[in-house]
Amino acid sequence: MAPAPAAPAARESDAMRRAIALSARGLGATSPNPVVGCVVLDAAGRPVGEGWHRRAGGPHAEIHALAEAGDEARGGTAIVTLEPCDHTGRTGPCTRALVDAGIARVVYAVPDPHPAARGGAETLAAAGIDVEGGLLHAEAAEVNTAWLTSVRLGRPHVTWKYAAGLDGRVAAADGTSRWITSPESRADVHRLRAEADAVLVGSGTARADDPHLAVRGVPGAPQPMRVVADTGADAVHPGARILDNAAPTLIAVAEDTPVRKTARLPEHAEVVRLPRAQAGGRGLHLPALLAALHERGVRALLLEGGPTLAGSFAAAGLVDRVTGYLAPALLGEGPQVLAGAGFTTLAHALRLSLTDVTRIGPDLRITAVPLPATEES
Amino acid sequence: MAPAPAAPAARESDAMRRAIALSARGLGATSPNPVVGCVVLDAAGRPVGEGWHRRAGGPHAEIHALAEAGDEARGGTAIVTLEPCDHTGRTGPCTRALVDAGIARVVYAVPDPHPAARGGAETLAAAGIDVEGGLLHAEAAEVNTAWLTSVRLGRPHVTWKYAAGLDGRVAAADGTSRWITSPESRADVHRLRAEADAVLVGSGTARADDPHLAVRGVPGAPQPMRVVADTGADAVHPGARILDNAAPTLIAVAEDTPVRKTARLPEHAEVVRLPRAQAGGRGLHLPALLAALHERGVRALLLEGGPTLAGSFAAAGLVDRVTGYLAPALLGEGPQVLAGAGFTTLAHALRLSLTDVTRIGPDLRITAVPLPATEES
Repeated sequence: MAPAPAAPAARESDAMRRAIALSARGLGATSPNPVVGCVVLDAAGRPVGEGWHRRAGGPHAEIHALAEAGDEARGGTAIVTLEPCDHTGRTGPCTRALVDAGIARVVYAVPDPHPAARGGAETLAAAGIDVEGGLLHAEAAEVNTAWLTSVRLGRPHVTWKYAAGLDGRVAAADGTSRWITSPESRADVHRLRAEADAVLVGSGTARADDPHLAVRGVPGAPQPMRVVADTGADAVHPGARILDNAAPTLIAVAEDTPVRKTARLPEHAEVVRLPRAQAGGRGLHLPALLAALHERGVRALLLEGGPTLAGSFAAAGLVDRVTGYLAPALLGEGPQVLAGAGFTTLAHALRLSLTDVTRIGPDLRITAVPLPATEES
Repeated sequence: MAPAPAAPAARESDAMRRAIALSARGLGATSPNPVVGCVVLDAAGRPVGEGWHRRAGGPHAEIHALAEAGDEARGGTAIVTLEPCDHTGRTGPCTRALVDAGIARVVYAVPDPHPAARGGAETLAAAGIDVEGGLLHAEAAEVNTAWLTSVRLGRPHVTWKYAAGLDGRVAAADGTSRWITSPESRADVHRLRAEADAVLVGSGTARADDPHLAVRGVPGAPQPMRVVADTGADAVHPGARILDNAAPTLIAVAEDTPVRKTARLPEHAEVVRLPRAQAGGRGLHLPALLAALHERGVRALLLEGGPTLAGSFAAAGLVDRVTGYLAPALLGEGPQVLAGAGFTTLAHALRLSLTDVTRIGPDLRITAVPLPATEES
């Protein structure tokens, strides 16, 4: 088959932007798979089909888009945010579907880093299809950050979320913390949760706040797994709000915890026993906790606190993104957003780069990612 | 004299915007006077003169603008950011100069609240001039905030500036604090200093940092007075950088300080003896400190730290504006931006409203003002 004339570059870029936006609709619902969006252009470069991967186990984005395009896909171009898969998993390979539909050209943004899925581009080229990778790579990779990080590191991507006053206090001296931030910020946190596969808190937060941690106010949102790092199995009591049926619940306890302490938890809450932190640390061994979550399909983890658990993650270099909701208030006293991270000198501070600053109601939401570690002078 | 036809409203608004921008050039140089800008339009509505109040004791904005306009002012309109003065101080009344120049209409933004200067609008109207007040009031008042606040409260307007990591720490656990923020932010602080009449630090900062506090890198900027609240007269040592000749220096000590402790300071540094804080407080009595500064012509005070002094100002309700430079870093340990403010419950937190959020290099600069106190529930 001779390659079709490529659609004008601007059309392909527009279609990729649309495909990236479509891919984002899958956030929180596709793990352990990536989010993917696809737009099919006909031979004349007109969009005739679109789709996104809606949930793990369901059809891939390309299949949805090809189904919508029907015969109009013949001789056309498929614009996909991720290199089409070449393996038969719960669904057949997308490469086969693209060839069968008569697609003449495939443009993708991000190469598939996953050992089991890669090779799609080669297979398509071998079938005579004109293949190009890398279009709007950064934008597409940004939406898939959690999944790409999890493939690269073999553990979930960790977003640490906090809410504090401008002076970094998460609660007043008497412990009062409801509500530092505005209703608008709290609604935005539910959106963050909806995009995560699991939400994690420590025993201090479980004990102090009795949080529910489910997603509210986001129509159609999947519920993330609710996870408590409850090392001593003494923070989550029968009757805790997190133990209801609104979402799955996982209680992570130390492996040496007496069985009687976990036996009182309801049957639908899963308990996982993990090693304790190694010498010098406190709580659970975080790599073991992340491995347990990874095994359960978690790729995007939202760490919601409190200060001690966040400090342990920061100290272990296990924070991949920071999302802070800053209320325009000075609390003056009370606990800090981050405790016990063990940075004793400025040279050891965790340096970040701001990626987004947005005003949310009266508050400020900042998003930042760690800078690559530099040599100390 | 019959009122001249008013220039089109849009021209007057444009001229007022220009006058406001001109007024801002005087920030830091006019105290105890306000900053004022003026644009003169000729009878056809064309700008023919402009000026601003450049320094206390120098000509007022109107005088500069009328001089530039010359005969073209006759039958024209004067656009002024503040109601023209009606009193003879170090210069003659501006009302007289406007009448003498044959101005037919005067538009001002903010009425003069100062007892000695007010009445200008009435005098002008009595002379047959068409007078209108209130044009772009909010924008003009914003530039003059410090002066307007000082007239209203009889004390200097206080801007508290801090620099911290996202977690609100101003230094690491070992005290290292240079440099949390970027060179861009530090340059911006010099601009803030240049707009202030005085810069204040506490004894902790004087002792730990030996700060210089003068303005660097702002061409033509006036130097603010450098002030240390050194209650025990033991933080500023002979040889301290603040004692050089780069700018005036004021050392505020407790009135019961032995003379031998202050006698060792160089003669060009002024020492002022003030009452100690009242029962329950620490350090100096802040209203007395502010009164001493007000007497010395300070209208805009920049409070640069540290946490203890900032906490005392916040506890006393003496912070009028907060400017925070947030570095994208997590320090994890170390002192807080604000200490000892005595807010023990969230209901007592100092609630603010964000007025500006600007990215400065890699950092974030936030500006906020206290919300009016509300009834507690």
